[in-house]
Amino acid sequence: MTRDPLSLTFAALADPTRRAILDRLRAGEASVAELAEPFQMTPRAVSKHIGVLEAAGLVTRGRDAQRRPSRIRAEPLADVDRWLESYRQLWNRRFDRLDERLRRQQKRQAQ
Amino acid sequence: MTRDPLSLTFAALADPTRRAILDRLRAGEASVAELAEPFQMTPRAVSKHIGVLEAAGLVTRGRDAQRRPSRIRAEPLADVDRWLESYRQLWNRRFDRLDERLRRQQKRQAQ
Repeated sequence: MTRDPLSLTFAALADPTRRAILDRLRAGEASVAELAEPFQMTPRAVSKHIGVLEAAGLVTRGRDAQRRPSRIRAEPLADVDRWLESYRQLWNRRFDRLDERLRRQQKRQAQ
Repeated sequence: MTRDPLSLTFAALADPTRRAILDRLRAGEASVAELAEPFQMTPRAVSKHIGVLEAAGLVTRGRDAQRRPSRIRAEPLADVDRWLESYRQLWNRRFDRLDERLRRQQKRQAQ
């Protein structure tokens, strides 16, 4: 199945361990062994998760043959941010309406 | 498999048809028949997608027994937005560094 980039990104993010790995990589690059330790996972399981993140372009791996450190790539997340933009207007409008309703209620109670 | 809410949301968004349905629902509620038409899908296929969106809390369905119109719920998207927040700093920092590099380069060329 070929998937569009945004679907690949969302699918990669649909797992709490992969999100935790990304979160760890915000602090800087890390090898599979370094990532496996805090998560109490086998290197094989971590490698599999990194493979999914890499396929989605969320992670790149260094050339150092021994460590092959993973590094976070923010670009796909910036694409998610752009996709959210039109929906952001939606919930801001809803909050505005809620605000307006609360203000009218307070006004009534003050009278 | 029980999944955390954010994983459910990301999994629901990992499909272009489901994102297109959400996009349509931004304009207002719609029945399965109304949603099926522009997508040239069977009502059964649309119902299945709506079920996934509903399980993730991205859609609620009206009580009208005949139409059961789908309505978008922005709350899970607002959660995605909050999750993105810490990563937003990451790509902003990178853009800042790029900016800084460009500025220095222009300065050198001007000398």
